[in-house]
Amino acid sequence: MRIVQANQFDAKRSVETGTREQQEAVRAILADVRERGDEAVRAYTERFDRVRLENFRVSEAEYAEAEALVAPAVKAALTEAAANIRDFHQRQVRQSWFTAKESGTVLGQIVRPLKRVGLYVPGGTAAYPSSVLMNAIPAKIAGVPEVVIATPPGPDGRINPAILVAAGIAGVNEIYKVGGAQAIAALTYGTAQIKPVDKIVGPGNIFVALAKREVFGLVSIDMVAGPSEIVVLADETANPRYVAADLLSQAEHDPMSAAVLVTPSRALAEAVAQEVERQLTELPRRQIAEAALRDYGAILLVNDLDEGFAVVNRLAPEHLEIMIDNPFDQLGKVENAGAIFLGPYSSEPVGDYFAGTNHVIPTNGTARFSSPLSVDDFVKKSSVVSYSKRDLQEHGHKIVALAEQEGLAAHGRAIQERLNDFAKEEQERDQS
Amino acid sequence: MRIVQANQFDAKRSVETGTREQQEAVRAILADVRERGDEAVRAYTERFDRVRLENFRVSEAEYAEAEALVAPAVKAALTEAAANIRDFHQRQVRQSWFTAKESGTVLGQIVRPLKRVGLYVPGGTAAYPSSVLMNAIPAKIAGVPEVVIATPPGPDGRINPAILVAAGIAGVNEIYKVGGAQAIAALTYGTAQIKPVDKIVGPGNIFVALAKREVFGLVSIDMVAGPSEIVVLADETANPRYVAADLLSQAEHDPMSAAVLVTPSRALAEAVAQEVERQLTELPRRQIAEAALRDYGAILLVNDLDEGFAVVNRLAPEHLEIMIDNPFDQLGKVENAGAIFLGPYSSEPVGDYFAGTNHVIPTNGTARFSSPLSVDDFVKKSSVVSYSKRDLQEHGHKIVALAEQEGLAAHGRAIQERLNDFAKEEQERDQS
Repeated sequence: MRIVQANQFDAKRSVETGTREQQEAVRAILADVRERGDEAVRAYTERFDRVRLENFRVSEAEYAEAEALVAPAVKAALTEAAANIRDFHQRQVRQSWFTAKESGTVLGQIVRPLKRVGLYVPGGTAAYPSSVLMNAIPAKIAGVPEVVIATPPGPDGRINPAILVAAGIAGVNEIYKVGGAQAIAALTYGTAQIKPVDKIVGPGNIFVALAKREVFGLVSIDMVAGPSEIVVLADETANPRYVAADLLSQAEHDPMSAAVLVTPSRALAEAVAQEVERQLTELPRRQIAEAALRDYGAILLVNDLDEGFAVVNRLAPEHLEIMIDNPFDQLGKVENAGAIFLGPYSSEPVGDYFAGTNHVIPTNGTARFSSPLSVDDFVKKSSVVSYSKRDLQEHGHKIVALAEQEGLAAHGRAIQERLNDFAKEEQERDQS
Repeated sequence: MRIVQANQFDAKRSVETGTREQQEAVRAILADVRERGDEAVRAYTERFDRVRLENFRVSEAEYAEAEALVAPAVKAALTEAAANIRDFHQRQVRQSWFTAKESGTVLGQIVRPLKRVGLYVPGGTAAYPSSVLMNAIPAKIAGVPEVVIATPPGPDGRINPAILVAAGIAGVNEIYKVGGAQAIAALTYGTAQIKPVDKIVGPGNIFVALAKREVFGLVSIDMVAGPSEIVVLADETANPRYVAADLLSQAEHDPMSAAVLVTPSRALAEAVAQEVERQLTELPRRQIAEAALRDYGAILLVNDLDEGFAVVNRLAPEHLEIMIDNPFDQLGKVENAGAIFLGPYSSEPVGDYFAGTNHVIPTNGTARFSSPLSVDDFVKKSSVVSYSKRDLQEHGHKIVALAEQEGLAAHGRAIQERLNDFAKEEQERDQS
C-alpha cells in the first residue's frame, strides 16, 4: 500500500448513473412489465437468467429442501446473529406520542409500519444470507406485515439455499424468483403473481440501481449502495496485523472498495504496509483485494490524531475503526461515519455478521447525511391535529392574516367561516 | 362537484419526470455550474431571472429593509407560529443511546445533526413565508448549525420581504438570490460564494425537481412534492359550510390539487356540492379552484364509515379531515394519511400556518410510505460497536463460519487473527 501525506489524498467519488443505453434498457423493461405483467417478467427471466418459470413464488417444498442443504453450524450462527440483530433494532422502535393542551387542543404524531416491503437480493456469488437478516429483521421489528424477497434464480430455477434459510429465520413472508430491473418493476407496479410494495430495499447491479432510481416516488427506495469502504484510524498502540487484516476484509469485496489507514505513526504505517503484503498472499480473493488497494487504498500520514479525525470526517466512511487507547474518549470527534468500531476486538466483520448493528450502511461519503438501515426506514409518521374551539376562537384571526399575506384567500375563508359562527353565537348569547 | 360512488373513482397519479428536453437542459445547467461556478450561476440568473448580480448573498441592509416592509400583525403571527412549530418539533428530538453488556461489549446509536442544509424557496407568488418556518425550524431544532436559503430574485434583484422576515424568525443563517436548477447545482457542488450543503429541501418548479432528482446521492434530498390534496371524511353530523370551505382551501392551490369528500350521507354530499358552488363565486382564485375540482375533485358516496376509511387508505391523502362524532374513536382506522385533522375546528389551514405540526407532507399517495417533514430529516445516525475480548473469544468462530459460508475469506481471517492470539495467550498461561 502506498504511504502518503493525508493532505495529498482525495477520495474518488461519483454517483453511478449508468450509460444512456442502460437507462433506456431499464425504462423499456419497466414499461413492458407495467403493461404485460407476469408475461413480461417471464420473458426477461428467460432472457437474462436463462430459465423459464411458470410460477415465480418459492414453494414450501423448496424451503424444506433448502433447510437440508445448509450446514447446521451456519444455521445456528445465523439464528444467533438474528437474535442479536433483533435485540439491537428493538431499541430503535419509536412510540406514537400525543400532547393534550389545557386549551383542549391535542397534537401528536402517529408512528406506523409500512404495509408491504420488497427486499432485493442479488443472485450468484453475491447472494449473502447475512444481508437478508440485516434488511428483513428491522422491517419485521417495525411491524411490517408483508416482507417479500425478489432474487434472480439460477439457470436451474433455484435459489441459493442459505438465502432461503436466512429468509425463514428473519420471518420473510414471500420469496419470488425474479431479478434485475424486471423485479423492481414487478414490485413497483404489481403483476398477477406479485403484489406491489410500498418500499424496495437491498443492493443490486447497475440495472437494479437504475430501475430503483426510476421508480423513486412511486415507491420508496433506500440509498443506492456503492462499493464498501473502511477507514482505520490508529496510533502506535495498534496491532499492525489486526489493522492489515481489517483493511483486507473490505478490500476483498470489490475492486472498487476503499481501504484506508489514517495514522500519525510512521512506524505503524510501515508495519501495516508490510503486513498487508504478507496477508495478501494467503487470500483466495487476492486479485480483487489487490486492485482495490491499488486504486482506492492508501495509508495516510497525519501530524496527530486531531488531524486524523479531520481526515476521517472529510472521508465520511461507511466503516470506521478507531484503534487507539481509550477510544471512547475521542468518540465525540467523529462527525461523519456510518458505523464506528472501537478498540482492537471490534473488527469490522463483527458488525457485518454478528454484533447486532446493521451492516447496510451509507457508502461513498453519504454518511455525511444518511444513516445505517434501521427500524425508522420501515415506518411512516402521520401528524394529528385536534384543534379546540377555544384555540380557534383565540388564534383564528392570526391564521387568517397569514393566509391573506400569502394570497391564499380560501385558506383564510375556511377559518373565517368558523369565526363568523363563533361571533354569531356570542351575539345570540348576549341577546338572550 | 360531481357525486359518484366511491368504487367508481380512481385517483390520477403519476410521477413528474419532465420531458427529455427539460432533463437535458437541467443536466447542462448542473454540469456548467459544476465547472464554472459563480460565473455560470450569474449567467443563468441573468437569463432566467432577468437580473445581473455580482454578489448572491443577501446583505444585512436588505434584511433590515425587509423588516420595515412587513406588517406588524403578520410579523407577530409568524413569530407566534414559529413558537408553536418549535414546541411541536422539539418533541421529535431523539437522543443517542448505548447499551453496555455485562460481557464488556458496548453497542449504541449516535444521533447527530447534519452540518449544512439548503432550503429552496420558490419565487414570485409561490413564495410562502410559512414554508420557510416549516422547513427551517425542524433543521434548527435538530441542531443544524448552517441553514441556508436559495431563492430566485425578482427582476429588481430583490427577495420577497416576508421571506426574509420569516428566515430571520426561523434562524436561517445565509440567504442566496439564486433560483432554478442553477441553485440546486450551487448547493450541491458549491461555488466560490456558496458552500455546498449536505441536504436540499423545499419545493420548486419542474426544473428544480429534476435537478434534485439528478443530484440525489451526492446530497440528500426530500421527497419531490406534488400538488396539494385534501380528503374530508364526514358523516351527517358535519357542517357542510365547513366541509366546502376546507375543500376549497386546497383546491385554490393549483389546478392539479385534489379535493375529495368521502361520506355515507347523501344529504351531506348534496349540501356540500351546493355550498362549494356558492363559496366558489366569492374566491379570488376561483379559476384555479374550479379547474382543480373539475379534474381532481369528487364527492364519493360510501355505504358506511368503514368503507370510507378503506377509501381514505387507498387514496393515502396528504391532508385528511375527519368530521364525525368522537373522531378519536376511529383514529386507529387511518392507515395512510400525512396529516390528520379531527373535528369541526381542525380546519386544514390551522395546520398550514399555526398549530405547530409541519405543513410539508407527502403528496400523490406517498403517505403510504413517507412522512411529514420532521427533525428526523435533519439528523444522521451512526452505529457504535465496542466488542469485548470475552465476546470475541466466545463468538468469534461463529463469525468465521458465516464469513466462510459467504466466500469472504478475508472477513474470516480478520477474526481468526485475533482468535489465534487468544489461543496463543491461553497456551502460554497454561505453560506458566
